[in-house]
Amino acid sequence: MTKTLYDVAGIGNAIVDVLSFCEDSFLQKQGLIKNSMTLIDQERSAMLYRMAGQTTECSGGSVANTLAGMASLGAKTAFIGKVADDQLGDIFTHDMRAVGVHFSSVPAIGGPSTASCLVFVSSDAHRTMATFIGACSLVSEDDIHEYTIQNSAITYIEGYLWDTENAKSAIRKAIALAKKHGRKIAFTLSDVFCVDRHREAFFELIGNIDIMFANEAELKSLYKTDDFDYAVSKIRGRCPLIAVTRSEKGSIVLAGDTTEEAPAEYVAKVVDTTGAGDLYASGFLFGLTRGWDLKSCAMLGNRCAAEIITQLGARSMRPLKDLVA
Amino acid sequence: MTKTLYDVAGIGNAIVDVLSFCEDSFLQKQGLIKNSMTLIDQERSAMLYRMAGQTTECSGGSVANTLAGMASLGAKTAFIGKVADDQLGDIFTHDMRAVGVHFSSVPAIGGPSTASCLVFVSSDAHRTMATFIGACSLVSEDDIHEYTIQNSAITYIEGYLWDTENAKSAIRKAIALAKKHGRKIAFTLSDVFCVDRHREAFFELIGNIDIMFANEAELKSLYKTDDFDYAVSKIRGRCPLIAVTRSEKGSIVLAGDTTEEAPAEYVAKVVDTTGAGDLYASGFLFGLTRGWDLKSCAMLGNRCAAEIITQLGARSMRPLKDLVA
Repeated sequence: MTKTLYDVAGIGNAIVDVLSFCEDSFLQKQGLIKNSMTLIDQERSAMLYRMAGQTTECSGGSVANTLAGMASLGAKTAFIGKVADDQLGDIFTHDMRAVGVHFSSVPAIGGPSTASCLVFVSSDAHRTMATFIGACSLVSEDDIHEYTIQNSAITYIEGYLWDTENAKSAIRKAIALAKKHGRKIAFTLSDVFCVDRHREAFFELIGNIDIMFANEAELKSLYKTDDFDYAVSKIRGRCPLIAVTRSEKGSIVLAGDTTEEAPAEYVAKVVDTTGAGDLYASGFLFGLTRGWDLKSCAMLGNRCAAEIITQLGARSMRPLKDLVA
Repeated sequence: MTKTLYDVAGIGNAIVDVLSFCEDSFLQKQGLIKNSMTLIDQERSAMLYRMAGQTTECSGGSVANTLAGMASLGAKTAFIGKVADDQLGDIFTHDMRAVGVHFSSVPAIGGPSTASCLVFVSSDAHRTMATFIGACSLVSEDDIHEYTIQNSAITYIEGYLWDTENAKSAIRKAIALAKKHGRKIAFTLSDVFCVDRHREAFFELIGNIDIMFANEAELKSLYKTDDFDYAVSKIRGRCPLIAVTRSEKGSIVLAGDTTEEAPAEYVAKVVDTTGAGDLYASGFLFGLTRGWDLKSCAMLGNRCAAEIITQLGARSMRPLKDLVA
């Protein structure tokens, strides 16, 4: 890769997370499926919020979390996403810029409010999400500037964007620009149900990109199977580089016929798994844009994931620089 | 005390805390005095916010924190304070109601936004605050309803309220109502500089109340002395019950000529001291409204303070009920 202004440009939903602890029985009663993300409208969001306990607010969004993590590691990143002109939008914007992410997408005025995600954290630290997409629905190809994509080694997009009609044209434009300028494209499957909603579109996309992120459940969902090894055998080679996270089993990287394995880091006490996959991508992409070997990339990914699950929320309050050994 | 609808009604600033970690050199450069609270206008708040690192948002406000803590312990409480009709106001309101605090003050429309407090947490976990008082400046005697004060065993007010002109008439009304109905009044000195700004008013008040909370630094500030024992000898007897928190030295309670001492709880790792004094008051008032002896009140206060300093922010994400032994 030639030296670029940005290591990674990312396009994603610009969300503020509203975190609270809950019992698993609450999830069942509300029809929320543990460890997954459910899209909800504003009314249901208000209803669920009223039932939530004491909250903490923290900026979120999958690709946004990854870029914030990369910036905290020392990388140069740019984020494209849509907030509204409101207090949550101000919080999201501040938190991106505070860690050094370039973020200059124009806020939407007069439409829906900034997206919020109700993150319910169970006693086993697993998180279940209910997202009101709000102003994210207004992201469009007007937000994709050729200059940004041209000057980023990698353009990173999240599967969640497929849930938003306008976003698809933005993604198409970004992919076309990345290809035009010989830049790489990375993509995350995001969520098991997201995969289920957009399986065909994702298969088409995977043949067109360079780097794919998934967790074990998402990869199995892609092939509608319970057999992880089968899913791995199917996905291998469909994309040059595939990084799969496996929670306490660490992560594996498929590059053509080779497989790199990286064991999980030891974590004394898991507080909240929110952002584990996002921060894995931070570490992996950080290493990759610095030309590290794949195992080292995966190991830094594991280390970043291990760090974020000791904190509440998906943005590290502590700078991550020290994790780069 | 007769059985009342509420154990405690509290009047205080309704604030959302914006927490970030910082170096002590940042505080010095910005002229912020460690461990204290500085009042700032909206412009300076925006300027300091731009310089803050990754943030987490969490409801705050001193008396509000105390009532939320008491509710989490299992007490019945009502809060009086002013938010604006905005997203931060919604967050504050949610977090009060989520733990069971009665909060029905009407939000202000069209004026300043909901108050925010930039909480800078140093590497030694001590917190330094810069508060934009926003909509809190609009609290007035119209917000004090006789029914609430009449039906609360204790009315609790914070020294910070003296910084807001309108609030003073609200406090006077609340005190008059509490006295009219034979209810007790509790008061916290809030902050060393707050004491410095309102020393004479506080002295006058102290002669009129039943329970006073202070930390060591605030009590010394009240008597402009560095000698804690001297300050204790001066304050003794000026108010029937005086609870003084002393950080790692625990707390003492002065009741007439007697002194009760309660050692601090062991804390493995202090994350953030924000809310330590507020949560001490939660535990102390919880015990007091249940007729506990003073040492037991102070011990629960210490236990609540110990719990909150293991978390970021002044509202416990975990219910506090288990702390009531």
